[in-house]
Amino acid sequence: MNITFLLFPNLTQLDFTGPLQVLSRLPGAQVALAAKHKAPVPTDAVLTLNPTHDFSDCPPTDLLCIPGGFGIDDAMQDKETIAFVKREGARASYVTSVCTGAFILGAAGLLKGKKATTHWAYHDELKHVGAEPVQARVVRDGNLFTGGGVTAGIDFAFTLAAEIAGDDVAKAIQLGLEYDPAPPFHAGSPDKAAQATLEAMTARYAPRVADFRKALAAAAQGRQ
Amino acid sequence: MNITFLLFPNLTQLDFTGPLQVLSRLPGAQVALAAKHKAPVPTDAVLTLNPTHDFSDCPPTDLLCIPGGFGIDDAMQDKETIAFVKREGARASYVTSVCTGAFILGAAGLLKGKKATTHWAYHDELKHVGAEPVQARVVRDGNLFTGGGVTAGIDFAFTLAAEIAGDDVAKAIQLGLEYDPAPPFHAGSPDKAAQATLEAMTARYAPRVADFRKALAAAAQGRQ
Repeated sequence: MNITFLLFPNLTQLDFTGPLQVLSRLPGAQVALAAKHKAPVPTDAVLTLNPTHDFSDCPPTDLLCIPGGFGIDDAMQDKETIAFVKREGARASYVTSVCTGAFILGAAGLLKGKKATTHWAYHDELKHVGAEPVQARVVRDGNLFTGGGVTAGIDFAFTLAAEIAGDDVAKAIQLGLEYDPAPPFHAGSPDKAAQATLEAMTARYAPRVADFRKALAAAAQGRQ
Repeated sequence: MNITFLLFPNLTQLDFTGPLQVLSRLPGAQVALAAKHKAPVPTDAVLTLNPTHDFSDCPPTDLLCIPGGFGIDDAMQDKETIAFVKREGARASYVTSVCTGAFILGAAGLLKGKKATTHWAYHDELKHVGAEPVQARVVRDGNLFTGGGVTAGIDFAFTLAAEIAGDDVAKAIQLGLEYDPAPPFHAGSPDKAAQATLEAMTARYAPRVADFRKALAAAAQGRQ
């Protein structure tokens, strides 16, 4: 099972590192970290990531996973990146995304008519790539698996692990990673957060979402 | 607030990347990724990590965070690594670890007489570094915060975020990262896992724990 993660500048690193930790423990997993260039890729959180492959030497993908982050605005408009996602998405048995990585799949035309989810602040935007937005932490539509924002990528990865290798393997990995979450607060989704927190965060995301809409329109324009 | 993560070969990358994602969003956070050398550091999961600093140029630490992983066996015995942890641990306002990173603190003498936790498979070993093992996902003893295995680092980081910046800031970060976990299985701790899974995983860890005990003894010997 060749698992390919797309790396692109300014991705949210936990969108990628959460699923990586789970999926790399699947029996027989061969993981490729593919980027446009092999130079270190900056993330949102100090860390830079070293690709193992570029688009020219990436092995044929069985499971494609696209993380999100503010860098999607540029990645959606990058013709080589989208061509790579189209090419590997077409041959993969599983096409997947975490957080706003869904919109890179969308820009590659892979969400048309499909049920999908993404980060809560961008959920309504899914319709602009032809998807049917579904409010859930993990959404499956055939061979397409999408996860919600950032940490949803861990729940998403265990769902995928069970699909690929069976419940018992997934549960063994879960015990190994001691995934028995106990958040100190219950504020991790719009329906659980306090109204003031939700309003403050929605206001903080508003200019980002506005920029995203422009980028999405430019990406669509570029494909015509 | 200078936050220093120790990087060492063969750490479990999510022990580090989970807390990094949360703590790097604290207002005013300056994050250093410090390693013995500035070359890329291999992890357990394909990914290599690029340090931002080495032990000679790391800024003075306010919050020291040590991840775990099988690489602790070597890191505990590395005199320069332990000297760095002693030096930065002595000046830090918060001394912290995730998973088996606790034993690097232990090797530096920072757990003596302290309540602490670690990965479930290594929990009983805490007494060998003079700590008082406590069964909990996050344990606080004064300015010492320890987290359980791997994914416990996320709960640990939100606990720390609230301590440092207040509940409201922690909750806003939680909403931004959509941390509203919904594991597909309830198998993430020894008391929730099926007996067969627990036995299989305990057997798989047994040779690792045996190696660890030898490494811990050698580290103690090296300090005499």
